[in-house]
Amino acid sequence: MNKIGAILIGGTGYGAKEFLRLSLNHPELEVVEICSKSESSKYISDLHREFKNILDSRFSQTPSLDLLTPFTHKFIVLALPHGESQLFVKDHFINCKENGIHILDLSGDFRITDTEKRETWYPNQHNLSEEIYKSFTYGLSEINKDQIKSAQNICNPGCFSTGAILSLYPLIKNYPDLIINIAIDGKSGSSGGGKSPKQTFHHPELNSSAYAYNVLKHRHEAEITDALGVEENKLAFVPHVIPLSRGMLISAYIFTKDKIKQDDLTNLYISTYKQSKFVRILSNPPEIRLVAGSNFIDIYPVVRDNVISITVAFDNLVKGMAGQAIQNINILSELKEDTGLKLAPLGLV
Amino acid sequence: MNKIGAILIGGTGYGAKEFLRLSLNHPELEVVEICSKSESSKYISDLHREFKNILDSRFSQTPSLDLLTPFTHKFIVLALPHGESQLFVKDHFINCKENGIHILDLSGDFRITDTEKRETWYPNQHNLSEEIYKSFTYGLSEINKDQIKSAQNICNPGCFSTGAILSLYPLIKNYPDLIINIAIDGKSGSSGGGKSPKQTFHHPELNSSAYAYNVLKHRHEAEITDALGVEENKLAFVPHVIPLSRGMLISAYIFTKDKIKQDDLTNLYISTYKQSKFVRILSNPPEIRLVAGSNFIDIYPVVRDNVISITVAFDNLVKGMAGQAIQNINILSELKEDTGLKLAPLGLV
Amino acid sequence: MNKIGAILIGGTGYGAKEFLRLSLNHPELEVVEICSKSESSKYISDLHREFKNILDSRFSQTPSLDLLTPFTHKFIVLALPHGESQLFVKDHFINCKENGIHILDLSGDFRITDTEKRETWYPNQHNLSEEIYKSFTYGLSEINKDQIKSAQNICNPGCFSTGAILSLYPLIKNYPDLIINIAIDGKSGSSGGGKSPKQTFHHPELNSSAYAYNVLKHRHEAEITDALGVEENKLAFVPHVIPLSRGMLISAYIFTKDKIKQDDLTNLYISTYKQSKFVRILSNPPEIRLVAGSNFIDIYPVVRDNVISITVAFDNLVKGMAGQAIQNINILSELKEDTGLKLAPLGLV
Amino acid sequence: MNKIGAILIGGTGYGAKEFLRLSLNHPELEVVEICSKSESSKYISDLHREFKNILDSRFSQTPSLDLLTPFTHKFIVLALPHGESQLFVKDHFINCKENGIHILDLSGDFRITDTEKRETWYPNQHNLSEEIYKSFTYGLSEINKDQIKSAQNICNPGCFSTGAILSLYPLIKNYPDLIINIAIDGKSGSSGGGKSPKQTFHHPELNSSAYAYNVLKHRHEAEITDALGVEENKLAFVPHVIPLSRGMLISAYIFTKDKIKQDDLTNLYISTYKQSKFVRILSNPPEIRLVAGSNFIDIYPVVRDNVISITVAFDNLVKGMAGQAIQNINILSELKEDTGLKLAPLGLV
Repeated sequence: MNKIGAILIGGTGYGAKEFLRLSLNHPELEVVEICSKSESSKYISDLHREFKNILDSRFSQTPSLDLLTPFTHKFIVLALPHGESQLFVKDHFINCKENGIHILDLSGDFRITDTEKRETWYPNQHNLSEEIYKSFTYGLSEINKDQIKSAQNICNPGCFSTGAILSLYPLIKNYPDLIINIAIDGKSGSSGGGKSPKQTFHHPELNSSAYAYNVLKHRHEAEITDALGVEENKLAFVPHVIPLSRGMLISAYIFTKDKIKQDDLTNLYISTYKQSKFVRILSNPPEIRLVAGSNFIDIYPVVRDNVISITVAFDNLVKGMAGQAIQNINILSELKEDTGLKLAPLGLV
Repeated sequence: MNKIGAILIGGTGYGAKEFLRLSLNHPELEVVEICSKSESSKYISDLHREFKNILDSRFSQTPSLDLLTPFTHKFIVLALPHGESQLFVKDHFINCKENGIHILDLSGDFRITDTEKRETWYPNQHNLSEEIYKSFTYGLSEINKDQIKSAQNICNPGCFSTGAILSLYPLIKNYPDLIINIAIDGKSGSSGGGKSPKQTFHHPELNSSAYAYNVLKHRHEAEITDALGVEENKLAFVPHVIPLSRGMLISAYIFTKDKIKQDDLTNLYISTYKQSKFVRILSNPPEIRLVAGSNFIDIYPVVRDNVISITVAFDNLVKGMAGQAIQNINILSELKEDTGLKLAPLGLV
Repeated sequence: MNKIGAILIGGTGYGAKEFLRLSLNHPELEVVEICSKSESSKYISDLHREFKNILDSRFSQTPSLDLLTPFTHKFIVLALPHGESQLFVKDHFINCKENGIHILDLSGDFRITDTEKRETWYPNQHNLSEEIYKSFTYGLSEINKDQIKSAQNICNPGCFSTGAILSLYPLIKNYPDLIINIAIDGKSGSSGGGKSPKQTFHHPELNSSAYAYNVLKHRHEAEITDALGVEENKLAFVPHVIPLSRGMLISAYIFTKDKIKQDDLTNLYISTYKQSKFVRILSNPPEIRLVAGSNFIDIYPVVRDNVISITVAFDNLVKGMAGQAIQNINILSELKEDTGLKLAPLGLV
Repeated sequence: MNKIGAILIGGTGYGAKEFLRLSLNHPELEVVEICSKSESSKYISDLHREFKNILDSRFSQTPSLDLLTPFTHKFIVLALPHGESQLFVKDHFINCKENGIHILDLSGDFRITDTEKRETWYPNQHNLSEEIYKSFTYGLSEINKDQIKSAQNICNPGCFSTGAILSLYPLIKNYPDLIINIAIDGKSGSSGGGKSPKQTFHHPELNSSAYAYNVLKHRHEAEITDALGVEENKLAFVPHVIPLSRGMLISAYIFTKDKIKQDDLTNLYISTYKQSKFVRILSNPPEIRLVAGSNFIDIYPVVRDNVISITVAFDNLVKGMAGQAIQNINILSELKEDTGLKLAPLGLV
């Protein structure tokens, strides 16, 4: 019998789909129920057609928490739009707490710890209690592993945030006074825009095109500065969409007061992440194809004079979302961190 | 201990790379050595960089067959260019036979059984003995399962051939006299062209473009007619390259003497493949994204008057190459056919 | 002063946009007004942003036919959805006729001459008079040039139809009894699906994917058989979407009673189209990039035994739509056929 | 008779191809000869197949300067690899000067004015005289228009440089002391990598992938700092390849000592470029599809606190290369700057 049981709430989007794809290859994790209000009673494989002959269950309307009783470790995974996660948690917080069920939220609803900041970036707040907000640990697995081990609930980081934080963390932790400014250029595949068709993600208009959006005002910037303790006006972030579906590239430019040597920089990154199975420090620029489909995040640190460049590649749907969720579930369930996440990158996509 | 040991010969191309990717997720298959004359002693993960921190071995110059001794089932997998497989087999046939080692060849060297036809399509023949040619079973798993179970050696089908044969087989087997003509339109992702850079696969010239090639004279046509027993002049095949890396779409047009009913057609395909875990008969057109990364092949049969359309999608690198190779290894090793091949399709690529 | 004036009705879609792009480079054609009910009074360059600093006019609500009075040749170009063109023509037919204004319709509303067939494929008919239907000449420029010269109104062919008809016409005209069956495999870029976002054209789901649709039941099949006089049950057509925006590839497979020689076939195509500036007969397979952005259509005829393959590439938005519309306007206005259409193909897209 | 005659040297690459595409639509520019040592006497349309039925001439071995005699304005356009342009100029400088022939060089050989810096970035120097180096004016049309009008020879800017310089110029010119640091993130389509097939531009490995290269050490950085007079250690530049063929996106991040107001910033850019027909200042992020195929460069300036973001889109082959070359030819020949360059952007690519 599997050790971990999970109920997936909001089973229709790309996050849910990817969580299911990965959970199917996990030896200890069983998704016992998949809920969707809009698709209730429909076959999952009629909506996510890649699961034909793989998943033969149907969407439930509402979760049956009892289904989790037999499992040593119990999870509810929320793959709901921003704003709706709060509503679900409001209704189920006590019940989950009393039954030892951890809530793992893929949305941005619980990522920002500062109340005012949270309300600025996510205006549709539902006035939950401080206890609820504080019950959520920020699930950046490599950095918060100890807190995750003993977390009640987990909020999963945003995709850009994951890449940006992991690229900056070694520097900020070890050289808190070194940095003058940071520019972060994010490049996302189109799956980051979600499943609903939109003009800006309409194939004829994105194929062989690319563009910036939310220039200097993307929500993840708040999450990044929050997680790293960096002043907002020292950091500039511009996200872009590039014409591919799955994958993310982040280039951070760090202007420093003093010059670090290349060897010291490389060693700093290697030593910081030496326990992190999914972080690979490269001596060549990362490529999306070399991480696609896997939970790896590849990092390439370079220095020249007073400028440091950190380029990073990862799969926005895996390490940037569903893979990191499973990584957090593993950590919380005292499994090896990479259980069910050993899939090699595709290499060709 | 794993039951199956394999040595991979010719470890540098896309076939080898994909075979390694899939074998890493196989619970019973261990690749004990990877040989490459050109890259000998180089780290595998320096050439196939997606395997960094996953595979830490080096390429060998020549195989050490002794490494296979401990395994119940022993394989040599040839991922060599057409023509070179024959040379390897010429040298190692007897030794392999005496040691119970099966050779599985990914090239086209042993696919065509008729000598004259073989020499026409693959001119660089090396005059092997009839015994050698006859020791190879055509590894189209769904159709030749019984022969594969007792095969000495296996030649893996071509990618187009796999799709074309599976799309036509139910009709030809059950209605041998029904068919007047068959047109097969093949659409391949660019990985089918191999790893070496070429002008016709240069990104600036293939991005947002597409073209036919080897019009009415592609080698796989010989393989298809050979395997199905169809007269060459009844069948026309034109392969195309479309601007994606991984995936294949085949549309077969079958003109018939009599009209089949849609229900009969659908049922024929369902019943023919009801034991085949990787064949999915759809009631909607297949899409490459819904099979990408997996060993599934999706088939959609439609009839109108005297015309039947069979559209088919699969991953040319998996079901069209390395996945089917592992499927054949499973069959020959008396494992469940889908051992190590349960990866769900990517859905988004 | 320009000789030709045009009013564009329905200025918001891709057809309108491309018509405008090409008309801007035409020395004799002036688009004097662009109408859109939904976008009335909005700047055209706010909707079609590529025209910023190029087009500074606004959408009109309804056309002012008087604007055409000064021009020697007067056109109304309809870029409306199927069904809506009929409504416009119903209201304006007499007025246009009396004022010497030609209507050129980009929709499918007037393409099918047989009443019953038309009602089958385009169910939303509006019962116009026979006089109206008969006032429309089928605008396949290369084949109907003489009729177009003296046409009252013109219906522009569908994109697939343009490619299919031009690929088959030389054979059918010269060897009416030769053909047994025809399979037509169409591959379209995503712009063929129109401007409105849809799930099947959502970038994350079409990038690196491809699929068939309307299998054996696409409207253009009726148009093709109608234009060529081929029996419906002799011809099978399956359209596909491939992951690019602009461009179309058609592969026709023709099974014949007798064998034609390659030289005769090539010469037949060369001689049939020797007066056609936009048809290029190639001795290598056509590529979408080599025609993209231009009005060229490249054709490559090959024969083997009793099978003929005709592969064809063109830009679905130019020769398949707006370019052919301008070509027809030129013909009807007694200009050189290629006036304003001399743009060289992009080569790289 | 056309006013401008040009001989194109090095006619086989993408720069030459695009120069020819654009010159075909230019009413005053005639390319009288196209030279290629490697393809001498071959038909141009056999190599650049998109020009079939458009260009029917052959490559010459060496230029016949006499062909330029009849023209009022005479040009030799060099589309040679870096290093080879210097050799050509060494041999022909005096002859060209005496005959009033301007040399326009598309390579990087003459862009860097500082001798030492030039030798650092372009090591294969051929020791030309200072007179020769000084005869070349840096052809960034919008900024150096007056110098170009009276130039003897012109070196055309690099693609990244064009975008970076135009994005920074208004700030640096008007607020020389404002800037602390600048990060420039460049994203190029694959055509920027040239015509020769390479592993890093092999379609299966670039499709749906992306990567950085020459991190903090790209030649264009020298050109940018040189042209703008910025200290090298204040500016960081990382170029990337994204999976499209034609187009470039640049995001500049400027950290400033004081805060500029958004309106002042926008007005600064509008006023700086108000005479520049090809520069469009947008109030929304630019997109590659909205400039592709045209000579436009779209710029979007945004400020927040002490950070300014400038995002820029243009076609690397047009404004980044051949289009700007023709723009410079127009300026030098006293034509309107946009003669032959009025092609509207494609909108869909």
